[in-house]
Amino acid sequence: MPESPCLNDLGAHLGLPVEGDGSFAIAGVAGLECAGPADLSFVRSRRYAARLSGSRAGALIAPPGVHVGDRPVLRSHDPGLDFSRAVRWFQPEALVPAGIHPTAVIAEGAQIDPSASIGAHCAIAPAVSVGPRSVLYAGVTLYEGVSIGSDCRIHAGCVLREATTLGDRVVLHPNAVLGADGFAYLGDGGGGLAKVPQVGRVVVGDDVEIGAGTAIDRGTLGDTLIGHRTKIDNLVQVGHNCTIGEQVIIVAQVGLSGSTIVEDGAVILGQAGAAGHLTIGAGAIVGPQSGLHKDVAAGTRVLGNPQQEGRGFYRNMAALGRVRGLLRRVRAIERRLGMNAGDDEPGRS
Amino acid sequence: MPESPCLNDLGAHLGLPVEGDGSFAIAGVAGLECAGPADLSFVRSRRYAARLSGSRAGALIAPPGVHVGDRPVLRSHDPGLDFSRAVRWFQPEALVPAGIHPTAVIAEGAQIDPSASIGAHCAIAPAVSVGPRSVLYAGVTLYEGVSIGSDCRIHAGCVLREATTLGDRVVLHPNAVLGADGFAYLGDGGGGLAKVPQVGRVVVGDDVEIGAGTAIDRGTLGDTLIGHRTKIDNLVQVGHNCTIGEQVIIVAQVGLSGSTIVEDGAVILGQAGAAGHLTIGAGAIVGPQSGLHKDVAAGTRVLGNPQQEGRGFYRNMAALGRVRGLLRRVRAIERRLGMNAGDDEPGRS
Amino acid sequence: MPESPCLNDLGAHLGLPVEGDGSFAIAGVAGLECAGPADLSFVRSRRYAARLSGSRAGALIAPPGVHVGDRPVLRSHDPGLDFSRAVRWFQPEALVPAGIHPTAVIAEGAQIDPSASIGAHCAIAPAVSVGPRSVLYAGVTLYEGVSIGSDCRIHAGCVLREATTLGDRVVLHPNAVLGADGFAYLGDGGGGLAKVPQVGRVVVGDDVEIGAGTAIDRGTLGDTLIGHRTKIDNLVQVGHNCTIGEQVIIVAQVGLSGSTIVEDGAVILGQAGAAGHLTIGAGAIVGPQSGLHKDVAAGTRVLGNPQQEGRGFYRNMAALGRVRGLLRRVRAIERRLGMNAGDDEPGRS
Repeated sequence: MPESPCLNDLGAHLGLPVEGDGSFAIAGVAGLECAGPADLSFVRSRRYAARLSGSRAGALIAPPGVHVGDRPVLRSHDPGLDFSRAVRWFQPEALVPAGIHPTAVIAEGAQIDPSASIGAHCAIAPAVSVGPRSVLYAGVTLYEGVSIGSDCRIHAGCVLREATTLGDRVVLHPNAVLGADGFAYLGDGGGGLAKVPQVGRVVVGDDVEIGAGTAIDRGTLGDTLIGHRTKIDNLVQVGHNCTIGEQVIIVAQVGLSGSTIVEDGAVILGQAGAAGHLTIGAGAIVGPQSGLHKDVAAGTRVLGNPQQEGRGFYRNMAALGRVRGLLRRVRAIERRLGMNAGDDEPGRS
Repeated sequence: MPESPCLNDLGAHLGLPVEGDGSFAIAGVAGLECAGPADLSFVRSRRYAARLSGSRAGALIAPPGVHVGDRPVLRSHDPGLDFSRAVRWFQPEALVPAGIHPTAVIAEGAQIDPSASIGAHCAIAPAVSVGPRSVLYAGVTLYEGVSIGSDCRIHAGCVLREATTLGDRVVLHPNAVLGADGFAYLGDGGGGLAKVPQVGRVVVGDDVEIGAGTAIDRGTLGDTLIGHRTKIDNLVQVGHNCTIGEQVIIVAQVGLSGSTIVEDGAVILGQAGAAGHLTIGAGAIVGPQSGLHKDVAAGTRVLGNPQQEGRGFYRNMAALGRVRGLLRRVRAIERRLGMNAGDDEPGRS
Repeated sequence: MPESPCLNDLGAHLGLPVEGDGSFAIAGVAGLECAGPADLSFVRSRRYAARLSGSRAGALIAPPGVHVGDRPVLRSHDPGLDFSRAVRWFQPEALVPAGIHPTAVIAEGAQIDPSASIGAHCAIAPAVSVGPRSVLYAGVTLYEGVSIGSDCRIHAGCVLREATTLGDRVVLHPNAVLGADGFAYLGDGGGGLAKVPQVGRVVVGDDVEIGAGTAIDRGTLGDTLIGHRTKIDNLVQVGHNCTIGEQVIIVAQVGLSGSTIVEDGAVILGQAGAAGHLTIGAGAIVGPQSGLHKDVAAGTRVLGNPQQEGRGFYRNMAALGRVRGLLRRVRAIERRLGMNAGDDEPGRS
C-alpha cells in the first residue's frame, strides 16, 4: 500500500474500474453509518439506497448501476468481498518477526522453521515441528509430537496436546485447546469408574479457523478430524472421534458429542447440540439451540429440540399457543352434547 | 482492621449502632448455618427467624426490630450489604506489591505505571499502557495497543488482543479472552470462504467484571462496547460489534450473536442465546435458555425458544401436557356425531 | 511391557486365558473397523458378530463363547475394560521427569514434593503445596494457599485461585479454571451494584477429572465441593457453593447455578442447565439441554425445559405435532353443531 493511497491505487490493487475522481485520498475504511467524508465505504445493492444517501462516506465500492451521488466509486460485482480486501489492504495483519523469543522453551529435537515466530513463554516439547512463517503468540504450549504446517497463527494461551496436527494457514484464537482427552469411562467392575485411555489425535486440515476457548478432544484410538476450510467459532465443544468435513461452519457454543459426523458444507448455528454418533448431512443447516437426537439429512434445515424439519418447529410452537383455546372450545362442545368434560386434567390423560 | 476486632470496631467501620455486648470478639464471618459461637453472621428479615434461632452464630447484623435472642447485634437497614462489607473487612483482597516481575516481557515503549503490578510470565506488546495500581496476575498477554485503566485486576491467563481498552476498576477472571476476531466469512467467488477482516476493538467501561473463560470478540470495523458497571459471568460469548449498556447482568454461558444491543439494566440469564442484530431493551429480563429471534421490549420479561412474554412459556408448556387428553375427547365427540376421526395422525394434518 | 509383546505377554498382564496362538506378536491396538492383521481389537458380545467377521484384526479380546474365527483371542468377561487396560499397556501415559523447570517461578515457602514435576513457566504463589508425583504441565498458575495431592496431572494453562484444594489422582485438562469468584452482586443502596465478596474455596476429592476450559467457582463463604471420582467434561460451568457428590458425571457445556446440590451417581448430559439452589437426587439422569427449575428426585430421569419425567418430554413434543389437526377437527365439529368457531385465534384465548 502506498503511504497516502488514493482511489486509483485501491482500484489498481483490487482490479476494479474507478468512476469519478480517482485522485480521492482515502483516509480510512468504515461502514456506511460511521464513515466520514475522507473514508471509503461500500454498498451491496440498491436496497441500501436510503442508508447510502444518509452516509457521509466520501467514496464507495458499489455494484454497477447503483447510484452513489457525485462521489467517486469503484464498481464491483461483489462489493462486500472487495471491501473486505480493501480493509485488509488498509490494515494488514501485524507482521511478526521471525525467530524464537529468548523466554520460549524449546525441547531438543523440535523442528522450528527459521522463518517461524515463537513468542514469549511458549513451551515446545520434543518431536514438535513448526512450519515456515507460522506464528505462535505468547504462552502457547505444544505437547510432544505436535505438527504445525506453514503460515499458521496460533494465538496466545492455546494448548495443543500430544500429536495434534495442523495443516497450512490454520488460525487458532486465544486459549483454544486441541487434543484434550475425550470423555469416556467404563464401570471398573468394582462399582467405580475406569477411564478409557484416549490415545488418538486431533488432525486439522488447511485454512481452518478455530475460536477462542474452543475445545476439540483427541480421538480415543483413531483421530478427531477437522476438514479443510472449516470455521469454528468460540467456546465450541467437539467430542472425541468427530469427523468434521470441509467448509463446515460451526457457530459459538455448539456442542458435538463423540463420533458425530458433519459432512461438507453443513452449518451448525449457535448453542446447538448433537447426541453422539449422529450424521449431519452435507449442506444441512442446524438451527440455533437445536437438540439433535437423530441424523440430519443432507441439504435439509432442522430446528428445535427434538429437531423438526423446515418450518415445523415454528409452526408447532405457534400451534402451542392455541391449545388453551381448544380446551375451552372442546368443553363447550361437550356441554352442548351432554358429555362428561372431566378428563381434561393433566396427569389424568 | 484491628488485630482482634470486636463488634464495636466493626460497628464503627460500618457506621452501624451496636446493641448488646460491643466487646464481643469476632473470630470470623459465616452464613447462619455454618457460623460458630465466635462468628458474626447476618439475617435479612423476620422470615429467617427459624434459621436464626437454630444458628450458633455469636453475633449478628440484623434489621431493627428483628429479635436475635440475647446475642449482640449491629442494626442495619441493609444487612446483606453490610455483611458483605464486614466480610471484605475481615478478608481484604490480597495486596499485590507494585512492580514488574523479572520474568515478564515488556516491549519497549509500553507504559506501565510504577504503582501497577505485572506478574510472572506476562507478555506485553508495544504501545500498551497499564494504569495506576492495576494488577496483572501471572501469564497475562496484552497485544499491541491495549490500554488498561487504573485499579484493574486481570487474572492469570487472560488474553487481550490488539487495542482492547479497559476503563478503571475492571476485573477480568482467569483465561478470559477479549478482542479475538469476530466470526464472519464471505463467499470468495470461487466456492471457498473469504475471511472478513476484523479490525475493530473491544472497549470496556469502568467497574465491569468479566468471568472466567468468557470470550468477547472485537468489532469488525467499529467497536464492541461493554458499558459501565456491567457484570458478565463465566463462559459467555459476546459476538463482534455488540453494544452492551450500563449495569447489565449476563449470566454464565449466554451467547450473544454479532451486533446485539443490550440496553442499560437488562438481565440475561444462563445459557440464553440471541440471534444477531437484535435489541434487548432497558431493564428487560431474558429467562434462562431462552432463544431470542426478535427484539425484547424494554422492561419486559421473556422466556423460551422462541421467546414468549410474561408467563406465556410456562402456560403453554403446561397446556402441552393436555393435548393427548384433547385428542381423546375430540375423538369421542366425533364418534358421537358419526364424524370421521381419521385425520388425527401426525404427518396427515 | 516387553519390547515386542505377544498375546501371551498381554494375557499374563491382564490375567486372561489365551485361546489359539499365544505367540501372536501384537503391533498395535485399534477398534474393529481400523485394526489391521497385526493389531489387537475387541468385541463386547455376539451382537457385534457382523462387524467382527468384517474386521481385519489379527487378535481379539472377546467374551467366552463368542466365535472369532481362527484368530487368537483373550477371553474376558469385560472385554471393553480389558481392552482399555491393553491400550494403556501399549501406550502408557508419558512419564514426566521429576523436578522444577528453571523457568518456573516458585514463591518462597511453597512446598513442592521432590518427586513432583513443575513445568516451564508455571507460577506458584506462597503457601502452596504440591504432593508426590504430581505433574504440572507448562504455564499452570497456582494462587496463594493452593493444595495439590499426590499423583495429580494439571495440564497446561490451568489456573487455580486462592486456597483451591485437590485430592489425589486428580486430572485437570488444559485451561480449566478453579476458584474464580462466584457471580453475586447486591444493590449498593445508591442505584449501583456492590460485589458480594467471594472468599470460600473449591475443594476437589480424589480421582476427579475436570475438562478443558471448565470453570468451577469458589464458594462465597463456604466451599464449592466436588466429590470423589466425579468426572466433569469440557466447558462446564459450576457456580459458587455447589455441592457435587461422588461419582457424578457432568457432560460438556452443562451449567449449574450457585448452590446446586448434585447427589452421588447422578448423570447430567450435555448443555443442561440448573437454576440455583436445586437438588439433583442420587442416580438421577438429566437429559441433554434440559432446563431444571425444580428438584430432580433420586433415581428419576428428566428431560426438557421445563423438565418432565420419563418419556414425558418426547410424548408431549410428539403431541404438539397434532395440535393443528385438532384445530381443524374442532372447527368441523363446531360447524356441524352450528357453534361459533371464532375464538381459536392466539391472543384471543
